Amino acid sequence: MWTRSMAFTAGLRPSFLRHFLRIRNFSSKPEHAPFYSVCDIFRGNKNGNVNVKGWIKSVRKMKGAVFIDINDGSGPERLQIVIPKEMMTSNMGFGASLEACGHLAVNPNNQKELKADKIKVLGSCDATTDYPFAARKSYPDDYIRQFLHYRPRHSPFASVLRLRDAAMRGLHHILGEMDYICVSTPILTSNDCEGAGEVFSVQPHNKECLDAIRKHEMTLEEAYFNCEAFLTVSGQLQLEAAARGLGKVYTFGPVFRAENSKSRLHLSEFYMLEAETAFSDDIEEPMDLTERLVKGTAQKLVDSCINDLEYLGKINNCNLIERLNTIANGPAFPRMQYDEAAEILKQHESQFEVKVVIGENFKKEHELFLSNRSLQETGQSLIFITHWPAHTKAFYMKRNDSSQVKRV
Amino acid sequence: MWTRSMAFTAGLRPSFLRHFLRIRNFSSKPEHAPFYSVCDIFRGNKNGNVNVKGWIKSVRKMKGAVFIDINDGSGPERLQIVIPKEMMTSNMGFGASLEACGHLAVNPNNQKELKADKIKVLGSCDATTDYPFAARKSYPDDYIRQFLHYRPRHSPFASVLRLRDAAMRGLHHILGEMDYICVSTPILTSNDCEGAGEVFSVQPHNKECLDAIRKHEMTLEEAYFNCEAFLTVSGQLQLEAAARGLGKVYTFGPVFRAENSKSRLHLSEFYMLEAETAFSDDIEEPMDLTERLVKGTAQKLVDSCINDLEYLGKINNCNLIERLNTIANGPAFPRMQYDEAAEILKQHESQFEVKVVIGENFKKEHELFLSNRSLQETGQSLIFITHWPAHTKAFYMKRNDSSQVKRV
Repeated sequence: MWTRSMAFTAGLRPSFLRHFLRIRNFSSKPEHAPFYSVCDIFRGNKNGNVNVKGWIKSVRKMKGAVFIDINDGSGPERLQIVIPKEMMTSNMGFGASLEACGHLAVNPNNQKELKADKIKVLGSCDATTDYPFAARKSYPDDYIRQFLHYRPRHSPFASVLRLRDAAMRGLHHILGEMDYICVSTPILTSNDCEGAGEVFSVQPHNKECLDAIRKHEMTLEEAYFNCEAFLTVSGQLQLEAAARGLGKVYTFGPVFRAENSKSRLHLSEFYMLEAETAFSDDIEEPMDLTERLVKGTAQKLVDSCINDLEYLGKINNCNLIERLNTIANGPAFPRMQYDEAAEILKQHESQFEVKVVIGENFKKEHELFLSNRSLQETGQSLIFITHWPAHTKAFYMKRNDSSQVKRV
Repeated sequence: MWTRSMAFTAGLRPSFLRHFLRIRNFSSKPEHAPFYSVCDIFRGNKNGNVNVKGWIKSVRKMKGAVFIDINDGSGPERLQIVIPKEMMTSNMGFGASLEACGHLAVNPNNQKELKADKIKVLGSCDATTDYPFAARKSYPDDYIRQFLHYRPRHSPFASVLRLRDAAMRGLHHILGEMDYICVSTPILTSNDCEGAGEVFSVQPHNKECLDAIRKHEMTLEEAYFNCEAFLTVSGQLQLEAAARGLGKVYTFGPVFRAENSKSRLHLSEFYMLEAETAFSDDIEEPMDLTERLVKGTAQKLVDSCINDLEYLGKINNCNLIERLNTIANGPAFPRMQYDEAAEILKQHESQFEVKVVIGENFKKEHELFLSNRSLQETGQSLIFITHWPAHTKAFYMKRNDSSQVKRV
């Protein structure tokens, strides 16, 4: 086989091979024109002949030329491709995917565009019948959500997915820098970590398999795992054990709640970051870690996704970049004890629908008030509140050593 | 609150605060002695006064001094702490945790040790009654596995967990460098991706919740999600949709198999990396990506966990570092078509228990033979085999365009 033997004899690196092979495949391309993503083209000093691939977002026919905007998912940017009218074919419409090859130039609006001399439709799209979206129309999110598999092709959804990716990378990077070890705690578990009974139970779907392995006097629910199995609601218990051997550990994985609620509090499936540290006896430590994680992740989003943030801010009418910059580079997050926070809330009680009861948990509106007040007074809306009354917290929370019974 | 106002007024950074506060907490420490992990002490040029915390691995009493080895999970290394006999207390035994503070020195064996002038037991451990392990005894893995929560405190298990963490970081890093976007595909799903029926079904454990939301003519199994729900066996379907908007995507998450088998093929829950790329029409591309991932991850393991690899290699009597170095820096992985591989196997048929049938899948022993042969001939044991007979592969695999019906 040609490729293999070439790679063997010349010791060529995969990156070279890939490039070389891609050129061989598309025989109509100018020789050695490299393949770039749209994001590559805008972020680097890319010049000369290039190849790009992407989905058509809009087509504008002018007198002698056709302007085609494409996006390839590498970022929110669209690259304008210019072709002479004669090269246009009927299947170059909204939603189709194409490969274009040509020369990068800067247009009179000072924007990069591709003057293509080769263009090829890779997949056509009949927007009149099969496709639930039309060119130059915007749709409410709820409409788009109906078409699960098309969500990532819609700019706001794609931006959110890229931001989520960047946030995940930020969290792993910061924790890794501090020598925290990522442990994938079990998803299938026999313990109901928070004791609320809001777990999903799990069983093999194949009843024959269950019958075959069921032992005497065992229920079907226990047959497969030798006990009932649930989906984890938290990796905390396993992390606590792991920290007692590895020192600093965390998990960032899916957790599950079987709640009969349509609120934003808990989805049936969501991702949660949990960290545990051995030998930590100082309440400032988890707050420092949290602050570093939140600030670092905000910075990571600004550093890697500024165009996505600009785009999402524009369509949602807010300045996301400024907000994240304030979190990342603004003041330290205020730290306040429960008594002080409760006192402040008491002073503004007339503003709340639900009364503040000293010694009890705060409600959402109380938390929002404290956050807004902090923003005005300190410039930072995120705030730590510690030293809660012990009875409002779970039994496993560490108690502090002051004479009052409170937890830290 | 003192800490908060100090952080506010002086604009101090969390890292400074943490350090400062830690010193306040441990009043018996020499002033300004920084806290280091054991791994920090061995990898850097740490000198002077330091604080460390960890678990006691062994205690040796000599004439005038006591030598205590501790490990803190940051790596496989143990730090030797030397204290005068008078500072020794009865609870400084195997399994206990302690904090020590003193001066780093190099002993006559040219190894770093801590000459402690303060030492404090943080948690004692009665190895004679409660603890299932004794000092200076080694245990078979199967014995240790019985005590799930103690696994991470045993060096081989801790090393494996650190290697797993490094491998995960390697994969995310390499894919991120190539602008692949990590998408967390759903764990709860209504589709059985591989169609084998080996899925787990999922239901809320709380039957009252189910009864409350069950609609007319709906089974309990369908009540919560409006359809039967399973644990994912693969994120491929969702990734394929995501790639058609984001271009290059991957997922690295838990997947599940409900198989009545105790083989090493599938665990009930395991982690799998899956990647999808839009516009990829060249079989060399996924092979290049796979090769880059495997080589890069092998390199990452050597770079970040050389001491763990050395330790695990020693107790398992093999040279793990050399093996990984060969993968990372050895020749490209050979690429071979099915016909060529089948031909080679036919020539050596007498060596196999199961006959080679041309046109059918290979068995494990056949794959191992090809891998061993490749190692001898090319120096690389990992090998790609492509162009399989179409009927041995799933319907959704891309067919190649040669006249024979084969898949690529």
